[in-house]
This record gives sequence, C-alpha cells and structure tokens, in this order.
Amino acid sequence: MAESDIRLRPIGVIRTPHKEAAGTPIQPRFAEGAEGSVQVFPEYAEGLADLAGFDRVWLLYRFDRVRDVRLKVTPYLDTEPRGLFATRAPCRPNPIGLSCVRLLSVEGALLRIADVDMLDGTPLLDIKPYCPRFDCYEARRCGWLDDVDAGGGVADGRFHDKAGPTGD
Amino acid sequence: MAESDIRLRPIGVIRTPHKEAAGTPIQPRFAEGAEGSVQVFPEYAEGLADLAGFDRVWLLYRFDRVRDVRLKVTPYLDTEPRGLFATRAPCRPNPIGLSCVRLLSVEGALLRIADVDMLDGTPLLDIKPYCPRFDCYEARRCGWLDDVDAGGGVADGRFHDKAGPTGD
Repeated sequence: MAESDIRLRPIGVIRTPHKEAAGTPIQPRFAEGAEGSVQVFPEYAEGLADLAGFDRVWLLYRFDRVRDVRLKVTPYLDTEPRGLFATRAPCRPNPIGLSCVRLLSVEGALLRIADVDMLDGTPLLDIKPYCPRFDCYEARRCGWLDDVDAGGGVADGRFHDKAGPTGD
Repeated sequence: MAESDIRLRPIGVIRTPHKEAAGTPIQPRFAEGAEGSVQVFPEYAEGLADLAGFDRVWLLYRFDRVRDVRLKVTPYLDTEPRGLFATRAPCRPNPIGLSCVRLLSVEGALLRIADVDMLDGTPLLDIKPYCPRFDCYEARRCGWLDDVDAGGGVADGRFHDKAGPTGD
C-alpha cells in the first residue's frame, strides 16, 4: 500500500431484491417501494442508537462487482459519453456508492429500508442521517441531466461483471 | 489486509481557508461564501468533462486527522450523547466525509468551489454531480436534529488531532 492509501472495512451488508445489475433501479428515486435491509455487524450496533427517529438515511457502500475504472462513460440516462465525475456511474477510481434510502425500522442491528437501488450483498461502509437542512440545496443547473428524460432509470450490464451491483 | 478490506487512493486535494477544526463550519449550510478549491490529480482530469454544467457537486473525502473511532458521540449541535450513525461526526469506522459544495468553475483539473466545510489539505476520494431530483427527498422526521437550534454550527477540537479536519 502507498502511504496515502486508505483502508476501509465493511461495517455491514445490504440486502435487496436486486440480484443483478440489469433491471436494477439506478437511483432510489426510481426504486420507490423496493424494500431491503441492512445487517450491521454486531461490533458497530452501539452506533445505531437514535437513528430510528430519522425518515431517511444515506448509505455509503462499495460498488463491489464493477468491472473496471473508466473516466469517460455513457450514462444510463444519456447517449453521449460524459466525464465520469459528471455522472453517478459506478466505475469510479474509488468505487463508493451513495444512496438516500427510506428508513422503515431499526430492530437491534437490523435496519429495514425502502427505495433500495443497490445489489443484494453490497458491502456497507457508512450510514449518515439524512437531513434536508444539510442535504437539500437549490441547484438550477444540473448539466447534461437537464436535457434528459425525467422518467424511470434502470441499469443494464454495461459497467458490471455478470452479477454486479447497480450504478448509483 | 483482510480479504474484505477495501483500498482507496486519493484522487486530489481539497484546499480551504480552514486550517484547524476549531472554528470550522460543520456543514456547507453553515459555510456559505467560504471559498476553496479542489486540485484533481492529472491522471483523473479526463473524468471532469461535463462537470462545469452543474451548480453543485458532492465531495467525498477522507477525515484524515480524526483522533479515533467512537460509536457514541456528543454532536456539535447537541448536548446529549448519540449513536454515531445518527450523527455526521467525523470519528467513524470508515472516516468518509460528504459535503455538497457550490461549483464556481472548472479550470483544467482545478475546481473553484464555495461553501466549504472541510479542512485545508483534506484528501479527495470522489466527486459526484448534485442533482435535486436524486438528492432531495422529503423527510419529516430528522431525529434529534428536530430539537436543536437551526443556527450556525462550527466545530471545536473534540474529535480531532491538533490540526484535524472538521466534522461534516
């Protein structure tokens, strides 16, 4: 490892109905109603106190079945190649996914969640509370996304190994 | 390294006016107007294409100067100990910070940004476009945050080494 490298360790596993990338919603917005769960490893359960009071949480997770890193991608919602960092495609130098899911309940170290857009078995890295005061900002310009259809988005296999996780 | 460990590598450095945790805004919301920059390493510059069209971006970064991991913390905005995952405190098992900053310009591999709430020199892990369609959700219940003052929040030294980064 180089000195500047960072070593992370999963703190749990995300369970979802999505077994392969093809057909998986690409954002929680397109996954409304899809239910799943988060199994937090017991050694981190103490950190879940006070979480049940939040309607939504951010999950940070590893895109663990993505094929390779690409700096130019054609996003699911577009037909033009775009700079990777202007997209949410999963083939990132540091393959961290970010999804705002609905929190249904906290039962010990098990979270019941909804609006899940990640693949079953995805390694969990972090949970943060979602708070519109900190997370909702006015943004008039959303680049190439301003020009694409607002309709539902699902993944295909373009970024993944056979059973890879979906883009976020 | 255990087999499940994940190795990340910084893709750039975040420059801000905040040299130490004490006094640094704890969220972009409390940092309005504070300007900074992101120096993306040249090997990733190609991935910045199309980013200039976005008003805001998510930065994911490493809390690189945090002292230790704690599963119960007293947040900056509260006086009660809370479960870590119900807070945005930086002393996390995987110390990844998440901030939605304003994007002022893209000049080659240099991003000018505003509303910066991280410490100068913070290692950058990822950039994602901010899009209200994907990132703004209704959340009526925000747990303990519903009961605290909505006023400005700044960090002190409680989570950091002497020159540590701020909480997010």
